[in-house]
Amino acid sequence: MREYSCVHRGRSEPLDLHLGMFLPTLLNQASPEQMETFFIPAWNLEIIGTYAQTEMGHGTHLRGLETTATYDPATQEFVMNSPTITSIKWWPGGLGKTSNYAIVLAQLHTQGKCHGLQAFIVPLRSMNTHIPLPGVVVGDIGPKFGFDEVDNGYLKLENVRIPRDHMLMKYAKVEADGTYVKPPSAKLTYGTMVFIRSMIVGEAGHALAKSCTIAIRYSSVRHQSEIRPGEAEPQIMDYQTQQYKLFPLLATAYAYKFVGQYMNQVYHRITGDISQGDFSELPELHALSAGLKAFTTWTASAGIEVCRMACGGHGYSRCSALPDIYVTFVPTCTYEGENTVMMLQTARFLIKSYRQASAGHQLSGIVSYLNESERRLQPQSVSSRPTVVNVNDLASLVEAYKLRAAKLVEMAAKSIQQELQKRVSQEDAWNNSAIDLVRASDAHCHYVVVKLFAAKLGEIGDTGLHSVLSTLALLYALQGIQQHSGDFLQTGLLSVPQLSQVSQRLKELLAQLRPNAVALVDAFDYRDEMLNSVLGRYDGNVYEHMFEWARRSPLNKTEVHESYHKYLKPLQANL
Amino acid sequence: MREYSCVHRGRSEPLDLHLGMFLPTLLNQASPEQMETFFIPAWNLEIIGTYAQTEMGHGTHLRGLETTATYDPATQEFVMNSPTITSIKWWPGGLGKTSNYAIVLAQLHTQGKCHGLQAFIVPLRSMNTHIPLPGVVVGDIGPKFGFDEVDNGYLKLENVRIPRDHMLMKYAKVEADGTYVKPPSAKLTYGTMVFIRSMIVGEAGHALAKSCTIAIRYSSVRHQSEIRPGEAEPQIMDYQTQQYKLFPLLATAYAYKFVGQYMNQVYHRITGDISQGDFSELPELHALSAGLKAFTTWTASAGIEVCRMACGGHGYSRCSALPDIYVTFVPTCTYEGENTVMMLQTARFLIKSYRQASAGHQLSGIVSYLNESERRLQPQSVSSRPTVVNVNDLASLVEAYKLRAAKLVEMAAKSIQQELQKRVSQEDAWNNSAIDLVRASDAHCHYVVVKLFAAKLGEIGDTGLHSVLSTLALLYALQGIQQHSGDFLQTGLLSVPQLSQVSQRLKELLAQLRPNAVALVDAFDYRDEMLNSVLGRYDGNVYEHMFEWARRSPLNKTEVHESYHKYLKPLQANL
Repeated sequence: MREYSCVHRGRSEPLDLHLGMFLPTLLNQASPEQMETFFIPAWNLEIIGTYAQTEMGHGTHLRGLETTATYDPATQEFVMNSPTITSIKWWPGGLGKTSNYAIVLAQLHTQGKCHGLQAFIVPLRSMNTHIPLPGVVVGDIGPKFGFDEVDNGYLKLENVRIPRDHMLMKYAKVEADGTYVKPPSAKLTYGTMVFIRSMIVGEAGHALAKSCTIAIRYSSVRHQSEIRPGEAEPQIMDYQTQQYKLFPLLATAYAYKFVGQYMNQVYHRITGDISQGDFSELPELHALSAGLKAFTTWTASAGIEVCRMACGGHGYSRCSALPDIYVTFVPTCTYEGENTVMMLQTARFLIKSYRQASAGHQLSGIVSYLNESERRLQPQSVSSRPTVVNVNDLASLVEAYKLRAAKLVEMAAKSIQQELQKRVSQEDAWNNSAIDLVRASDAHCHYVVVKLFAAKLGEIGDTGLHSVLSTLALLYALQGIQQHSGDFLQTGLLSVPQLSQVSQRLKELLAQLRPNAVALVDAFDYRDEMLNSVLGRYDGNVYEHMFEWARRSPLNKTEVHESYHKYLKPLQANL
Repeated sequence: MREYSCVHRGRSEPLDLHLGMFLPTLLNQASPEQMETFFIPAWNLEIIGTYAQTEMGHGTHLRGLETTATYDPATQEFVMNSPTITSIKWWPGGLGKTSNYAIVLAQLHTQGKCHGLQAFIVPLRSMNTHIPLPGVVVGDIGPKFGFDEVDNGYLKLENVRIPRDHMLMKYAKVEADGTYVKPPSAKLTYGTMVFIRSMIVGEAGHALAKSCTIAIRYSSVRHQSEIRPGEAEPQIMDYQTQQYKLFPLLATAYAYKFVGQYMNQVYHRITGDISQGDFSELPELHALSAGLKAFTTWTASAGIEVCRMACGGHGYSRCSALPDIYVTFVPTCTYEGENTVMMLQTARFLIKSYRQASAGHQLSGIVSYLNESERRLQPQSVSSRPTVVNVNDLASLVEAYKLRAAKLVEMAAKSIQQELQKRVSQEDAWNNSAIDLVRASDAHCHYVVVKLFAAKLGEIGDTGLHSVLSTLALLYALQGIQQHSGDFLQTGLLSVPQLSQVSQRLKELLAQLRPNAVALVDAFDYRDEMLNSVLGRYDGNVYEHMFEWARRSPLNKTEVHESYHKYLKPLQANL
């Protein structure tokens, strides 16, 4: 099974959901009998399935889903319905034209009671003719931003009856008489979400690394304008502005790759604990994966566009590969949990932790910086305490990021407190502080990334490698400070003269990285076939191959295009 | 003639360049005899032309263009050549398959000397058969990010001979014996650039206004999650985070529309002056239009994507219209002068002005804030001078933006100075300060936008209208301060407690704008046919129409798609 399908590595295709969701869901949630019935036909592509969760009117808020599965004990069947227009299943990949089955998430009703969401195996199309079955209204949802090859679909169910054993029954069950049997633990479904979100973090590093490879290689091939009059046009990589666009993104790509690796390791470690019944680390990992998913996908998406535009006009050509990298990656900001909702989930954990610490509870793990004792050590303002940050020392910068996060979590908690004093409800106080909460989560995630980048350096023995990666890590940390300089000044962590030092140091680091830039993207080791980019070719023969690529354009099949005979000539004749 | 073609309002099409560039260039640069020969056939679409400037290896830096036109007095012809692969003309719209003529920019060589770029009318395809003429290698450059309907093309010229009177000769001339006659003024070509760039600024307002209309209307239709448990799912417009995404962009859209109007007025006023031989205001306008073009297109492009993603999953569907708005607008960041290059052009003017002021020269116009006398009044740091900004008063905020710009121009100038002290050349000192220079230009443009928004309020008599637009203007100014809080703290223009006030005030303004949000986008007055967005429908009947739109998807023409018979069925049969 190809794990890549979960996160759309490379080009996406109609079978992605079958391989990435349908088969794994069977593996995780089907009973042994169900495995026997469905798995081999699905493995052999007789059954081609998709995973139908999102509805036209309902996305990230799963409890709002409206599709119903009502148990009829008389026939021992579930009656599946889409009761409203907003309940029509919308977006599942491969649903429109390819799949003949779907796993459908629906509200289970039995014995007059609703038991919430369950997963059901629903046949959609005839196994012989591929024609939709009675009561199944299914089709393609139309053109999208990218993903041209995937038939994302809609599904309206009108009294579709499926046998009782088509509900996935490894955990929850409905007995023949309609009795509902609860699953042993609700936390089990957390695992998959955490896994997919940590995969997406790695994917953010991957997409950004590919984009940087293309933009940095091309910037070393492209010559333009002049720095010194009369001299040859320099490589555009020699412009400070170009370096300032691309090198921090290069550092970010390395950072996210390291964070992705870390999350994967933690996930597997914790999965071991969970299988032994220890759920203690799950809330922290769940919160971290939500925030980091949002933090990394937002930055990477914007970064891909910066890389694309750093290639000038040719970045708009699909021969650069950058338009495709963007449209394929940017949906990660929305799927598997909309980013702002994710940030607020992380904030919920941070505020909860902050309150526990304020109540005297000693926190452990990544949020231990919220402990009262540590917070008392923080500077309160420029005047009250001298700053101690050394802008040339990565460990000192990690500390500054940590204190910034602590301060912003505190500010968000205080905002909620102030709202509550206006006698609004807890929920309104939360909503009225949402900007601060997102900002706090962002600072928390930023701290985690800088910390993990610094930690990674400790694992590197080779001196040369350690040196260049240290430069990258320092660049990453300092550029984040420059971008969020208001935070660091406001919280008294940096002084105004230090901020000037940061700017100066950043420029030095750019110049320092310049000779290693191409080697640093070569080190990502993307073969030309993987990049599929004329601009990002390893051999640098960009222009010859761009001409060759253009000549193969579909419009060039004939010297005179049919539009001339169909439109232009008649138009000219009429004048 | 449809002026919209210059800036791609709405959908683009193969004849855009003919209408937007070929005909206007004839009008501006053809001699009376040339007008007689070419204009009527072009007007009647017998001649379909494009404008071929950019080459595969050369974009914004025009002097680098390589195409040659060498005059041969023996036959009184120009011999046109593309001497290298990088000299192949690349990107002109309609060049690939549609046009039978092009205006080609080429280096003029005559009597053994190069006289720089001139424009030549070059026939490309037979008027009878549309087959490319001998020596003309022409075709489509292949798929792009958007612009599917336009055949952007390439053009390689191999000893193509055109008569002497095919060089556009309203200004510069080549006489029969090959004598080159200079044009009367080089500044005349400035005008068109300034005009197009100011059009683009208005277009940034337009694209953002459309995007806000869609996102804000849809956010009032879409219900999701819960703020208060047990209550119905609220409109997503009620979430503070959603307001924080969209309302500042709404304010920005209004701001850019006003700035666009202003620039258009100034352009026409100055054009009057120019026709009377007064070029004095042109450098300022030229510098302003370059910077504002970059400033507004960057923000608007990023803003369109924020609007798109604020619509959740459905923002990815082309039925939202947002993907098309993005891919159609984002090229403005690159064409008509690459944005970073534009910012550096503005910086060149700012630094020149700063140096003049430092030398005792009294500046007038928009850069008068750089005068020595004014600069002496500026606060130097938090300690040396109390801050005077009133965060509730727009005039006071305009002042703060002005002082920030002054300070950042000064910092950039000092950076150059410091570099020069290291004994590097002027050019290297400039390049080594480029980050600071772009930052200074950005601050200058931001000041201009805030100032013009505030000035616009003065023109509004209606009290209700004045009140809501004042709220928008305040939101625009305060959000800019929050985003660049580091600058305002660093330059001592704001104190830390004032920054907290800014955050608090911003939240209040969001809540205050909430009831008027839909009215404020309705006021842009885009008819449904112009928006062409299911999500942005005026009547709010989003879901029904989305279903209808999807059912018309090309893939839904048949219940069973041909791919089933072609691929799936054989695949299943083989297993």
